[in-house]
Amino acid sequence: MNGSALLAALLFAPLAAYAQGWNVPPESQRCPSKWGAGDERGSGNHMKNPQNVLRAARLIKSGEIIELGHVLGPGMPFFGPRILNIQPKRTFMNTGRNTRGSNEEMVTSEIGQVGTQFDGFAHQTHGDLMYNCFKVSEVGTRNGFTKLGVHNAPAFFTRGVMIDVAALKGVEMLGDTYEITVADLEQALARQGNMRLQPGDAVIIHTGWGKLYGKDNPRYVKSTPGVGVAAAEWLVKQDPALVGADNWPVEVSPNPDKDLSLPGHQIFLVVNGVHLLENMKLDELAAKRVYEFAFSMQPLKIFGASGSTVAPVAIR
Amino acid sequence: MNGSALLAALLFAPLAAYAQGWNVPPESQRCPSKWGAGDERGSGNHMKNPQNVLRAARLIKSGEIIELGHVLGPGMPFFGPRILNIQPKRTFMNTGRNTRGSNEEMVTSEIGQVGTQFDGFAHQTHGDLMYNCFKVSEVGTRNGFTKLGVHNAPAFFTRGVMIDVAALKGVEMLGDTYEITVADLEQALARQGNMRLQPGDAVIIHTGWGKLYGKDNPRYVKSTPGVGVAAAEWLVKQDPALVGADNWPVEVSPNPDKDLSLPGHQIFLVVNGVHLLENMKLDELAAKRVYEFAFSMQPLKIFGASGSTVAPVAIR
Amino acid sequence: MNGSALLAALLFAPLAAYAQGWNVPPESQRCPSKWGAGDERGSGNHMKNPQNVLRAARLIKSGEIIELGHVLGPGMPFFGPRILNIQPKRTFMNTGRNTRGSNEEMVTSEIGQVGTQFDGFAHQTHGDLMYNCFKVSEVGTRNGFTKLGVHNAPAFFTRGVMIDVAALKGVEMLGDTYEITVADLEQALARQGNMRLQPGDAVIIHTGWGKLYGKDNPRYVKSTPGVGVAAAEWLVKQDPALVGADNWPVEVSPNPDKDLSLPGHQIFLVVNGVHLLENMKLDELAAKRVYEFAFSMQPLKIFGASGSTVAPVAIR
Amino acid sequence: MNGSALLAALLFAPLAAYAQGWNVPPESQRCPSKWGAGDERGSGNHMKNPQNVLRAARLIKSGEIIELGHVLGPGMPFFGPRILNIQPKRTFMNTGRNTRGSNEEMVTSEIGQVGTQFDGFAHQTHGDLMYNCFKVSEVGTRNGFTKLGVHNAPAFFTRGVMIDVAALKGVEMLGDTYEITVADLEQALARQGNMRLQPGDAVIIHTGWGKLYGKDNPRYVKSTPGVGVAAAEWLVKQDPALVGADNWPVEVSPNPDKDLSLPGHQIFLVVNGVHLLENMKLDELAAKRVYEFAFSMQPLKIFGASGSTVAPVAIR
Repeated sequence: MNGSALLAALLFAPLAAYAQGWNVPPESQRCPSKWGAGDERGSGNHMKNPQNVLRAARLIKSGEIIELGHVLGPGMPFFGPRILNIQPKRTFMNTGRNTRGSNEEMVTSEIGQVGTQFDGFAHQTHGDLMYNCFKVSEVGTRNGFTKLGVHNAPAFFTRGVMIDVAALKGVEMLGDTYEITVADLEQALARQGNMRLQPGDAVIIHTGWGKLYGKDNPRYVKSTPGVGVAAAEWLVKQDPALVGADNWPVEVSPNPDKDLSLPGHQIFLVVNGVHLLENMKLDELAAKRVYEFAFSMQPLKIFGASGSTVAPVAIR
Repeated sequence: MNGSALLAALLFAPLAAYAQGWNVPPESQRCPSKWGAGDERGSGNHMKNPQNVLRAARLIKSGEIIELGHVLGPGMPFFGPRILNIQPKRTFMNTGRNTRGSNEEMVTSEIGQVGTQFDGFAHQTHGDLMYNCFKVSEVGTRNGFTKLGVHNAPAFFTRGVMIDVAALKGVEMLGDTYEITVADLEQALARQGNMRLQPGDAVIIHTGWGKLYGKDNPRYVKSTPGVGVAAAEWLVKQDPALVGADNWPVEVSPNPDKDLSLPGHQIFLVVNGVHLLENMKLDELAAKRVYEFAFSMQPLKIFGASGSTVAPVAIR
Repeated sequence: MNGSALLAALLFAPLAAYAQGWNVPPESQRCPSKWGAGDERGSGNHMKNPQNVLRAARLIKSGEIIELGHVLGPGMPFFGPRILNIQPKRTFMNTGRNTRGSNEEMVTSEIGQVGTQFDGFAHQTHGDLMYNCFKVSEVGTRNGFTKLGVHNAPAFFTRGVMIDVAALKGVEMLGDTYEITVADLEQALARQGNMRLQPGDAVIIHTGWGKLYGKDNPRYVKSTPGVGVAAAEWLVKQDPALVGADNWPVEVSPNPDKDLSLPGHQIFLVVNGVHLLENMKLDELAAKRVYEFAFSMQPLKIFGASGSTVAPVAIR
Repeated sequence: MNGSALLAALLFAPLAAYAQGWNVPPESQRCPSKWGAGDERGSGNHMKNPQNVLRAARLIKSGEIIELGHVLGPGMPFFGPRILNIQPKRTFMNTGRNTRGSNEEMVTSEIGQVGTQFDGFAHQTHGDLMYNCFKVSEVGTRNGFTKLGVHNAPAFFTRGVMIDVAALKGVEMLGDTYEITVADLEQALARQGNMRLQPGDAVIIHTGWGKLYGKDNPRYVKSTPGVGVAAAEWLVKQDPALVGADNWPVEVSPNPDKDLSLPGHQIFLVVNGVHLLENMKLDELAAKRVYEFAFSMQPLKIFGASGSTVAPVAIR
């Protein structure tokens, strides 16, 4: 038994003493996932269904494209020590009478976990286990994850539904630690013309918190309104292609249960294999009251990475 | 006059002694661009026209999505010293009874100029001048370009047309330095059902060269078949939203005129403000003979950068 | 018990079933180290003894400085995916009539584990344990090690002794997998005028393998002559300030015992707290037959790092 | 004439209209340097003189080593957007019964221009010209400088002299923009036992400003006491091996002449080829009143770089 296998064996030991309140379901209840043993795509599998694509296409009526991603650069918020270092190289002047110069830049960043970003399934764990019970100790290497890498994620082109909870509450921005409930989501959908979610939707939640992005970054990252455990589990039941929001973790933070650290991340990514989309720019969508649209996004196919910075759009 | 202004003044001096054959047109003929003085979007302006979006949406009939981007990772070709270093961080175990671990990775790369990639207008120059006669010496900084950064580029959702020159010639792959001519493009379009290009199209050229990508990288980057000067100028006249190909520079390299270094890059990017899309993955599109489709691509909005690595798709 | 403590507890479990041949001594035999519980300096403690400094100073008689470090740059060998990316920034022209330009470069590298390099004690482990039984699971963070970081290492100025095993054997370079024995070291010292090692010496072994550095990098890193287990343990008994060589791991590789991976690294760094100095440039020293000298080296004080790239010198 | 030569020709144009006060001397007065045409070592040439080494060795009497470099890590000051990103890799567990784990870290930083740092001659320019009139436009590449790279600098082992100007003035720290004069230097030397500088000395100036390092970084980098133009020129006349200080630019900043940007950098590095050593840690040296010592420092031999982060020491 080599060191690696040993480590895996040890980490595979049962995590004991579940406290009351929400807990990560035991492996037997969550693995294999509903998409099958060995599946690495989770909710991304919805994009294999051409009906989802066709439904989105039918929503395009005016030809307007609304950008849902923030610019990556000066003024953006960062979590902890994350960085975005963009360094243009010296202009290279090629030989030839056409005096052609070339510019390019070196980027050093946690691309995939900065800016408007899409979470893959290697991003989060419960102990040593990730989505579909892939083990970090077995698939994590110094160069990337041999399973669950974000290069497995599909291009998304599906019906997008924005649920405007801020508008429901009649505020520009939900409170700093407001927990969005199931009732909030249901009432907001009802208010938006009795909308119904469908399997394969990109479900986008407007909290208004994005107004702080680039304006008051310390407050933006300190806490956030977002979905709680119950709303997260309700959303999972709707069988979406992904869940996004205009805040940094989609879910509320800190969690009202002080002994839980971002449980929504485990509910979506680890337990159910539902992708997340964070730090969305939803101001224009909200201002125009666009609740239904074709949602289009193409994560970068970074081999073995935990996520991808993205530039999604709504098309209507 | 400070040093920066001095440098600019000196570089602005006329470049003398044009040789015979193609030469970069003088500034007076290319600036301001047809999109107006100060314009930073060039062919990206086509995406402001909702008719282009609607035309693309109407092409979606089966709901199939075909990926046009390569995976970023092991085996990919690089030009010169470019790198893609992906380094997962140590798993961070958060406090809380839910034993939540977090993974993320630091990426160090010329993101924007590696893999399937979209060229912005800060990428190329003629002497000190870029598209619309913006000057490198004035807008280039250590952290990015204050003008022409790729964050100005729109999300693309427009009609895509693949011109299969390899199929026209009855080969899997054009020759190592084959110059695609205007006649080639016209005949290939005729062969594909008398197709016509329209303003705002994403024009994609299939050379077959992409078969070498990741298979024989040294040969892939050493030379390439592609459009010559005449075909590039013909393509510009079609007024596309962008021009792409399954090779590394879209154009032929080396150029048959040995004293020209990638003149197509200047024709498209510097002189006419037409975006390029390189290193496309076109094997599936070609095999399925999909010549017309909705083309969708969202460049990352990297502030002040010369380009963006992308993951475009064809939807039909 | 949070996840981190859990991991530590699990990893702390006894590693069972020691095979015959060399094995890592049990914790009880190696912790605390001879330098005391909690010590982070190991053999670096020798530099607290001013007699070592004075002895070195007395060896300086001609005023000649001989460099023992390779240039960091083009042509250097790397292990696995390590890199050295040096990227000068665009010249920044300051304001002011003195037209002062500034250059600097971004370096991306495993600085500390490339080129001529000094190994700190966070570099190597036995399971979860490092020198003095500090645990990776407790002191390793995403930003560095909270214990045993190379910033704890002293500046070295002590007697240097080169043991020329290649010369003893009458060869330019020892064989590709030659294991240096205790007898080799003793005979080489005898041949060099009956030299004796003293506690606190910087002991440098000349294998000749460095002739391949930058000349035949694939062969250089594939294997190497160097000290075996017995010679490593003998060297430790001499109580040196560090042990260095003109090869990449000081020790022989692969080890003759095929089930051991660089056991010398554990003998020196983990079990006994003796620093290593690798990839030395010893050609000049060997050609001039300089066996005794003042050894001077100042590791960079990189907080929490596993090692430091260095530029040591011999002064005589 | 290709683009590169053109650029060089243009930049070589005379810089007109010298104002009153200090100005960069014309090329004819400074090139070739006193070390000869084509010389890349400047004041580093002093280390070729064995008498300098021997003089230093004779100053070692007690065997005490005093570190003159700051720890590189949390809390250190940075100039502008410079960074020091240290990222330990995941522990790699090797195969073998000895369960050997390896740690290493990726460092992304302007190594050479952060922390206690040694300035090479590619660091500074007057227009396009550097030391000995090497031209940035000719020797600057995307991967480093083909001339004047810091790998040319020698290891330093020479007499060190600390001139304690703060002590002369009876203060812990000189004022925020205090210009050190020639008289200050002369009086401080007189006060320290009528010390005399000798060619080849490492001349270190104690301003006390280093007390702010890591304590009040914004103030530390905003301005600094240091030598003015006259004192810089006086120091150059003493023919030192280098000039260092416990502040970030050695010289006063901002310069009293508001139209000059760090003219001392040009006087030392560009005009006279005298190396600088910045951000020194001098508290211990000053507290112990150690004015004369063996100064030892080994810049990293980074090919083509502008400088090197270092960890110098005083030995006495």
